[in-house]
Amino acid sequence: MSEQATQRLINKLHALVGPAGLLTDAEAQAPYLTDWLGKWKGATPVVVRPANTAETAAVVRLCSETHTPIVTQGGNTGMSGGATPDASGAQVVLSTTRMNRVRAIDPINNTLTVDAGVILAHAHDAARSVDRFFPLSLGAQGSCTVGGNVATNAGGIAVLRYGNTRDLVLGLEVVLPDGRIWHGLRGLRKDNTGYDLKGLFIGSEGTLGVITGVVLKLFPQPTAHATAWVGAESLEKLVDLLSLMRTRCGERLTAFEMMTAASLQLVLDQVTDTRAPLAQPAPFNALIELSDTDEAGLRDLLEESLGESMAAGLTNDVMLSASEAQTMALWKLREGISQAQVRAGKAIKHDIALPISSLASFVAQAGQDVLACMPDARIVNFGHLGDGNLHYNVLMPPDAGDDALKRRTHELNGVVHQLVTDYGGSISAEHGVGQLRRDELRLYKSPVEMELMLRIKQAMDPNHLMNPGKLL
Amino acid sequence: MSEQATQRLINKLHALVGPAGLLTDAEAQAPYLTDWLGKWKGATPVVVRPANTAETAAVVRLCSETHTPIVTQGGNTGMSGGATPDASGAQVVLSTTRMNRVRAIDPINNTLTVDAGVILAHAHDAARSVDRFFPLSLGAQGSCTVGGNVATNAGGIAVLRYGNTRDLVLGLEVVLPDGRIWHGLRGLRKDNTGYDLKGLFIGSEGTLGVITGVVLKLFPQPTAHATAWVGAESLEKLVDLLSLMRTRCGERLTAFEMMTAASLQLVLDQVTDTRAPLAQPAPFNALIELSDTDEAGLRDLLEESLGESMAAGLTNDVMLSASEAQTMALWKLREGISQAQVRAGKAIKHDIALPISSLASFVAQAGQDVLACMPDARIVNFGHLGDGNLHYNVLMPPDAGDDALKRRTHELNGVVHQLVTDYGGSISAEHGVGQLRRDELRLYKSPVEMELMLRIKQAMDPNHLMNPGKLL
Repeated sequence: MSEQATQRLINKLHALVGPAGLLTDAEAQAPYLTDWLGKWKGATPVVVRPANTAETAAVVRLCSETHTPIVTQGGNTGMSGGATPDASGAQVVLSTTRMNRVRAIDPINNTLTVDAGVILAHAHDAARSVDRFFPLSLGAQGSCTVGGNVATNAGGIAVLRYGNTRDLVLGLEVVLPDGRIWHGLRGLRKDNTGYDLKGLFIGSEGTLGVITGVVLKLFPQPTAHATAWVGAESLEKLVDLLSLMRTRCGERLTAFEMMTAASLQLVLDQVTDTRAPLAQPAPFNALIELSDTDEAGLRDLLEESLGESMAAGLTNDVMLSASEAQTMALWKLREGISQAQVRAGKAIKHDIALPISSLASFVAQAGQDVLACMPDARIVNFGHLGDGNLHYNVLMPPDAGDDALKRRTHELNGVVHQLVTDYGGSISAEHGVGQLRRDELRLYKSPVEMELMLRIKQAMDPNHLMNPGKLL
Repeated sequence: MSEQATQRLINKLHALVGPAGLLTDAEAQAPYLTDWLGKWKGATPVVVRPANTAETAAVVRLCSETHTPIVTQGGNTGMSGGATPDASGAQVVLSTTRMNRVRAIDPINNTLTVDAGVILAHAHDAARSVDRFFPLSLGAQGSCTVGGNVATNAGGIAVLRYGNTRDLVLGLEVVLPDGRIWHGLRGLRKDNTGYDLKGLFIGSEGTLGVITGVVLKLFPQPTAHATAWVGAESLEKLVDLLSLMRTRCGERLTAFEMMTAASLQLVLDQVTDTRAPLAQPAPFNALIELSDTDEAGLRDLLEESLGESMAAGLTNDVMLSASEAQTMALWKLREGISQAQVRAGKAIKHDIALPISSLASFVAQAGQDVLACMPDARIVNFGHLGDGNLHYNVLMPPDAGDDALKRRTHELNGVVHQLVTDYGGSISAEHGVGQLRRDELRLYKSPVEMELMLRIKQAMDPNHLMNPGKLL
């Protein structure tokens, strides 16, 4: 973009959103031009922060008329570079963070209507204020926005029971690539009047439009929790335990998080104030949580089910949390792993999903393949076992250089993702495609599927101005 | 189509599917040319019944090459004429009913993979055979096919807890309008690798492709049930009771079905072996069911919750089922209403959904508006209150002629559907659009939304050969 054209664009945007809605200063722009991990960096003529849907629509219309590409950004906590502009300096960053109103809470309809820029933790608070529960829960919840959650179909730790963001959204308001508004803010449990437009925008990573409003589904507030840590000799046994727990506890089973011995040890080594939950280390561990609206018998049910699992030889060792403090200490082990990995070195990360019945066999094979490729690999394997979602990471030695990391990443991605595909899995379970997996996607999706996605993109955004270079 | 062209098409189809896959005889074709209600009738050159996905693909490719429109039909139990060909005689009927294999059951992954033509009740049986539960439940389950359920995003009586068909499908195999196959039969809980193609086909009523295979989500088998019938003075109170029950019982609340006094009376009058569940008739009734994987305390929980509701003045009268036979008798009252309506006369039917918080106010206003339009209207209002889904029907006098019925239907549709739209509701909650609501859809959907749907249709089926004249 010429300097003159840029200035003209900025002047026009200024007229639409005022000084509070524009960031032209390099220092002010900086946080919007790199991602949370600092992995991608880009440039922009201007960061636009519209105050509401009407301003967003005006901005998008202007960008459409001037053929200016738009990168929409929420809390900028994504893992795949999906919200970072490219280096061309031609892409406008549209930040939704000023749109942060809770629009409506309806405890009878069990719905919460928010601006896209509302922080996830604030949505939790709003639900709690009317004695309801919004279950989407992830590490970044203090910074990420609901709009970003919707655009990336965020997952997290409560998917086993409540589903992904896709399952938690009843309605959307979207500014389309030409600046018109689709008013789809419905709060209905049943609506069979045509194609699922809502579902198309969910997980489309800003490539089909700008989400400005969301109707979220609320749930009864669970008032009782029971938590345990278990050790198992093999992943097969842990998977069988998952089945047993689901059969016995039904929807009460809220979390079933897995950590290998190596993952747990990494946390114990790197994170202060942690200690091993079991007397003897187990090859595979699970953090199990039940929750319910009714306190009666919940802890007994957990104890009985785990007793059964010990009798069946599925677990060797069980530690039932006896207090809120113990529960927090157990969750700290699971949640400490991101920090522990950062401290221990550079990680080559894979966010994969498998059919749960294939998990054990996949993990055995992947271990062999990874070690054959890189004999000194430290495999850090943990994740949301209940959803079949593994964070299958490989730690590089702390002294590994950038070139070695790049080469190894390429090699290991090939090994792991081909195996995932052979097992009928997904190469991006919850983190999305963004820039990170865009080129790989073509290797593992069928040409038919890629073509269908491209046709939809063409139909919805014929000028390809919405988040170009991401996903597709 | 000329007689010669028809014969050529039939000869080519014969080469693809053999004699067992073709119905050319008028008598054999007859059941495929009218809908379950006998409301629509059509004509076809040939009914094709492919034996598998490969044959389906070959048939669709041939139809694409010869510009022959296709109407896909499952169990032919739809309520909106979505699977009946038009009268032109140009549309081939593609019946999926010979594709009826259970392809795979995976109790560890909690998935069931079936051909599209598998009867819903057989899917239930298959799940039960491995101690799992497939929750989709509707009146037609002995005849309807899973493929039809997916194509229409079927609802039914377990949506409150388990969601619509959309929420119960993990993967699809679809023959695209050009005869290629999209292999999307995944069994994953998390997969963020692009646009939600699966979601686009679900509920698209055969207008985007032919669904040939489905991966269904299975659930733990509930082993305990507790059922009650309650009476309430007003719909407001019943809605408050729904909130109370959800808060107290959480996901155990499996059904919350509503019947007005008039609806219940109609069943008592028309259906043999029925009797009033409460000593005193109540203006509004609810059939409430809890279910759980754990027997302990379920009946107590129901009793306590309903006791609380009586103390709070939400209900006047409660009848807790004491036996399997009593439970069946209560469900007979709810399920008898279709039959009762048929016996009582001609019904003008509305399958609508509202935000639950607006239900009471809507029903009050709709009653006034309907009676203003038709003072002798008998309103039969019942439905899935827990989903905000009402079957808001109006009975015509038994002696009403066809012309009067047609005129009244047009008038009352206008009154009811405009009010539904004003209240943020849906004019087709679970029955779909088909032929029944196609023209009305344009009156109540925004031009933006209609345009988006048409763009998707154009992108996916550019020659408009898939179920033309339905939905859009």
